[in-house]
Amino acid sequence: MAEQSLQAIFLHTLKDVYYAENAILKHLPTLSKAAGDKALKEAFDAHAKETAQQLKRLERVFELMDEKPSGEKCHALEGLAKEADEVVAAFPAGAARDAGLIAAAQAVEHYEIARYGTLRAWAIQLGQDEAADLFAETLAEEESTDDLLSELAEDVVNPKAA
Amino acid sequence: MAEQSLQAIFLHTLKDVYYAENAILKHLPTLSKAAGDKALKEAFDAHAKETAQQLKRLERVFELMDEKPSGEKCHALEGLAKEADEVVAAFPAGAARDAGLIAAAQAVEHYEIARYGTLRAWAIQLGQDEAADLFAETLAEEESTDDLLSELAEDVVNPKAA
Repeated sequence: MAEQSLQAIFLHTLKDVYYAENAILKHLPTLSKAAGDKALKEAFDAHAKETAQQLKRLERVFELMDEKPSGEKCHALEGLAKEADEVVAAFPAGAARDAGLIAAAQAVEHYEIARYGTLRAWAIQLGQDEAADLFAETLAEEESTDDLLSELAEDVVNPKAA
Repeated sequence: MAEQSLQAIFLHTLKDVYYAENAILKHLPTLSKAAGDKALKEAFDAHAKETAQQLKRLERVFELMDEKPSGEKCHALEGLAKEADEVVAAFPAGAARDAGLIAAAQAVEHYEIARYGTLRAWAIQLGQDEAADLFAETLAEEESTDDLLSELAEDVVNPKAA
């Protein structure tokens, strides 16, 4: 019963992240189109490919749990996506908009970093070693995307916007 | 004109974070009440005190920019708070709910880590040294709250829930 409880919140959160990654995959082309800087466009496009791979890992975890992959509305991601759309609406194409797009994308990356960190810790606790490894792989990708966006901001976009 | 642009998105994001911190301050007593573990309750209560201090730092940054402190609705924080409320609604008091509350709180911490990291980078770019230092101080607090929650989860709450 107690074990089932952590299992239950694990599954709940897995569905939340599955919804979030699907929403991100749909949203990334909008960000790429809105970006002015070429390297930023490329970063968004590369992250879309990575996200498709991350979805496959989540599907493998559902399989390991004998569950069909399904999403549960992730209110946090909906809010984060809305913030990116607000930046596009409020700032015309250019370096300031790019700075805002990077900020919005990094907020999404940090949401994922939090979620995969949690899922990994829970998987370890539940003895789900393969799932824990899959989450660790995605976590490392999200962290390096976040680092790449920081570099792009500090080295290229922010100086141009200021 | 270009400088004004980064300044504009800086101010927009400052208002977003000011709204978010106020919402967090209002929401923390709900999390504390919903938590079963004593150390987790204490962590939420301590973070409420810290948040009040972080709001004062934001007010100082508004002052440095000759602006009155004001918030702009932060959709991300609204979504993140809703996710915490969902955990409380779906899981009765106990270790699994505590695990979910920690996960929700860490998602909020990571939102703030992303935001303060961005604001700090922008403040540096804009030559706003005092603001950059204030953001760095808060950023360090959010990171240590996140670490504390990870420890609580891994050492106490997750093993109890499993």
